[in-house]
Amino acid sequence: MTQSSYTTKYKKEISLLREKLFDKQRQFREKKTSSLLLIIGGFDGIAKHDTANSIANWMDPRGLSTYDFGGITNSESERPEFWKYWQTLPAKGEIGIYLGAWYDRPFSEQAYNIVDFKRYQRYLSRIEVLEKQLALDHTIIIKLWISISKSEQEQRLHNLKEDPLTRWRVSEIEEKQTLYYEQFKTSSDLLLERTNYPYAKWHLIEGSNAKFRTITAAQTFENLFPVQQNKFSLSKKELTSSLPKKKKNIYATGMHLGLENYLDKSSYKQEIEIYRGRLHELSIQMIQKNLSAVIVFEGVDAAGKGGAIQRMLVAFDAPHYRVVPIAKPTENENRYHYLWRFWQHVPSKGMITIFDRSYYGRVLVERIEGFATTEEWNRAYSEINDFEEQLLESNTAVIKFWIQISKDEQLKRFRARQNNPHKNWKINKEDWRNREKWEQYEEAAEKMIDFTSTDSAPWTIVKGNDKRFARVKVIKTVCEKLGRILNQANV
Amino acid sequence: MTQSSYTTKYKKEISLLREKLFDKQRQFREKKTSSLLLIIGGFDGIAKHDTANSIANWMDPRGLSTYDFGGITNSESERPEFWKYWQTLPAKGEIGIYLGAWYDRPFSEQAYNIVDFKRYQRYLSRIEVLEKQLALDHTIIIKLWISISKSEQEQRLHNLKEDPLTRWRVSEIEEKQTLYYEQFKTSSDLLLERTNYPYAKWHLIEGSNAKFRTITAAQTFENLFPVQQNKFSLSKKELTSSLPKKKKNIYATGMHLGLENYLDKSSYKQEIEIYRGRLHELSIQMIQKNLSAVIVFEGVDAAGKGGAIQRMLVAFDAPHYRVVPIAKPTENENRYHYLWRFWQHVPSKGMITIFDRSYYGRVLVERIEGFATTEEWNRAYSEINDFEEQLLESNTAVIKFWIQISKDEQLKRFRARQNNPHKNWKINKEDWRNREKWEQYEEAAEKMIDFTSTDSAPWTIVKGNDKRFARVKVIKTVCEKLGRILNQANV
Repeated sequence: MTQSSYTTKYKKEISLLREKLFDKQRQFREKKTSSLLLIIGGFDGIAKHDTANSIANWMDPRGLSTYDFGGITNSESERPEFWKYWQTLPAKGEIGIYLGAWYDRPFSEQAYNIVDFKRYQRYLSRIEVLEKQLALDHTIIIKLWISISKSEQEQRLHNLKEDPLTRWRVSEIEEKQTLYYEQFKTSSDLLLERTNYPYAKWHLIEGSNAKFRTITAAQTFENLFPVQQNKFSLSKKELTSSLPKKKKNIYATGMHLGLENYLDKSSYKQEIEIYRGRLHELSIQMIQKNLSAVIVFEGVDAAGKGGAIQRMLVAFDAPHYRVVPIAKPTENENRYHYLWRFWQHVPSKGMITIFDRSYYGRVLVERIEGFATTEEWNRAYSEINDFEEQLLESNTAVIKFWIQISKDEQLKRFRARQNNPHKNWKINKEDWRNREKWEQYEEAAEKMIDFTSTDSAPWTIVKGNDKRFARVKVIKTVCEKLGRILNQANV
Repeated sequence: MTQSSYTTKYKKEISLLREKLFDKQRQFREKKTSSLLLIIGGFDGIAKHDTANSIANWMDPRGLSTYDFGGITNSESERPEFWKYWQTLPAKGEIGIYLGAWYDRPFSEQAYNIVDFKRYQRYLSRIEVLEKQLALDHTIIIKLWISISKSEQEQRLHNLKEDPLTRWRVSEIEEKQTLYYEQFKTSSDLLLERTNYPYAKWHLIEGSNAKFRTITAAQTFENLFPVQQNKFSLSKKELTSSLPKKKKNIYATGMHLGLENYLDKSSYKQEIEIYRGRLHELSIQMIQKNLSAVIVFEGVDAAGKGGAIQRMLVAFDAPHYRVVPIAKPTENENRYHYLWRFWQHVPSKGMITIFDRSYYGRVLVERIEGFATTEEWNRAYSEINDFEEQLLESNTAVIKFWIQISKDEQLKRFRARQNNPHKNWKINKEDWRNREKWEQYEEAAEKMIDFTSTDSAPWTIVKGNDKRFARVKVIKTVCEKLGRILNQANV
């Protein structure tokens, strides 16, 4: 084949490919039923960029964004390491091209031999959990890995460095990777093998020849880009095995003393003052030591969540916290994974986020009202545990309250609200409807508490029939938990 | 009055006040027609905090957030200085308590005499524009200034420093402010006088006695918290005078050569290659020099915006840009000022944001379809000029294209789209409806171009009947503009 007929053939191929890509993308965008993640990995940073550039240019730029997550990220960041990925996730109908994504760190650390094996394993399992979560939700994950031989890698770097226009692209990382080629190869083989999930398989792209590499990558991508989404879902067996280990019946233990704890007015005043003072001191230490906190409040309607939150806030400096009331997701929030809107509120260093209802809605109201399928709420327990684990690892305390009242007490409070002109706005038909499902909520709460009471983020069940008792209990518990963590940080 | 009867009276007052505040807040939240900004200024940082804490605690924490903007902010930030305020603005039905807000900087700089008078003036006029914009839109602005006498300031600091629990709160800034009391007093008097706008007046709070100060502040706030929003609006005269000075008829000048510029295929190929190469080089310099850019594309349907954008993007590295297609605002976006959603996309250092349609929709489609009132779109010209000025000041180029085609050419393109099975999704009833309003759009575009072609961010009118010509013109213009700015930065 002559050079010119080769070029013509190449051009024709690209033009055909672009048409197909454009068409698929348009249908995908209009349907708005799933998101697409194209992950481009590999150890030639420049090849990754060039491939991403071509694919991005061959598509419609609307609803398509490319992110470069390359390089070793600093683990000492403001928020959990994966927070930045959650911030950039594409909504339904959108496409995200991720350079390196969450693979660059384990890949490089392993190659440089600076990895602690336990940490490496944990990191890989974090990736698995994330990709599985996304794939199970509505995200199509396509992973391409660009590989290149040692001599070609050297040649490429040499050429790039010769040309003043491309010299800037050769970073220290690329140079090192050529030097340590063997280690990188071993590390990449290991990584590919371990992260080749049925719902997110790796596809190898031979990277030596730039033109060939780009068109192969784009063609592979086009082939895998589904016209119809084949939603990945767990088998019954997998679903059961995905449930976290249940502790002994915590909910029942928490409840067995009954709900009649009571605090008289003067003891209340005395105690709440003491613990508020203590909490205030602790909140100062939090700022000084960059300890953050997520405090979750759950409980049936009229359990007293709002009142307990407000009494606690007195101890904090107002710019130090955010109270996030959680209601039904908005149309926009529904375009993302259900945890997405909570990731938005993950506190930065030293800050406190208070959720008035929370992501636990997935296994409470969404379960009961059928907004989540049985499969969805069943796997939410371990997804939530994983989310909280990431918070804990990034120096964020996770404190969770279930405020429990009796059915009679709720009725009393509902009636009192209705008869009080200042408070009757607080009660509506939906509250009465929820009340009819009391037993269902009880069952859901029990399961939730048993499956998500981990060692480092256990639930505290607050006996709520007496408001004064409940409010003191909440503040006291926050003091205990923060105190313990701050003491550990002292070491 | 005995001490105990005084305390009882104080408690009663607070309880009454809280009830009123709660009630107003609830109505405010349910109506969702306006936002509320409570600005707490003054030079005693601790008094500001304590006041904010009390007011926040006396209200419902849902939909209420407190931000501390205290201290002198670093003017060398990632984005325009006011960006952080736009990020935190409360939505309709929400309340933001701003400590210091945009006042701390001009206040301190003036007091320390480190101010350049021109900059101070410009900063104040920026505040004026922002508050006016917000007030005209749907935001209630309540400003409290806490003042304190010199001896009391000294006494307070002394007491705070004595107590180990409060000592940490006394920062260097507070100490300095006591030392330079006279200067701070003069600076604050000046600032209050100059920023006391009819739509956002200052209310002085005597700050010596903590209890008295807090309750006075809260009462003042409660009094000013409107049950019914008295929307502030401009008089006809004010509205006319708010229009930017019109340059000589730019639109007509741009158009008078007709739309028939043409480029044959081979010249096109040659030219576009040259300018793309040049643009690629410039984009590298942008990253190296932290120059950002906002590139705006406007034009009637089928003018060729999308095609021109795509041809330009080839020159950039994919993670370096974001293309933001602008459609009708979502329900959530409608809860904010119309510029809010564009502030979200202001590029960080070295990044490029491309708006496929933009904030200029305010004076185009929103004007014509009646989504904005005559008053609203008339004042948008200067609001937009102000927005772009802030971008320019923070090392961000603003490049704006109006792609103009003839009415016949549009008809030809509409028909071609309809007859092409790959492209007929691009055309719908709305496009035909818009076409009927051709003359209105022309008039609106003309006015827009004349009123918003500033010296540093002029419009470029692109003759679009020939797509090849238009695409080269766009890339060439971006090269010229970026080249000029980068050259200046070289000095």
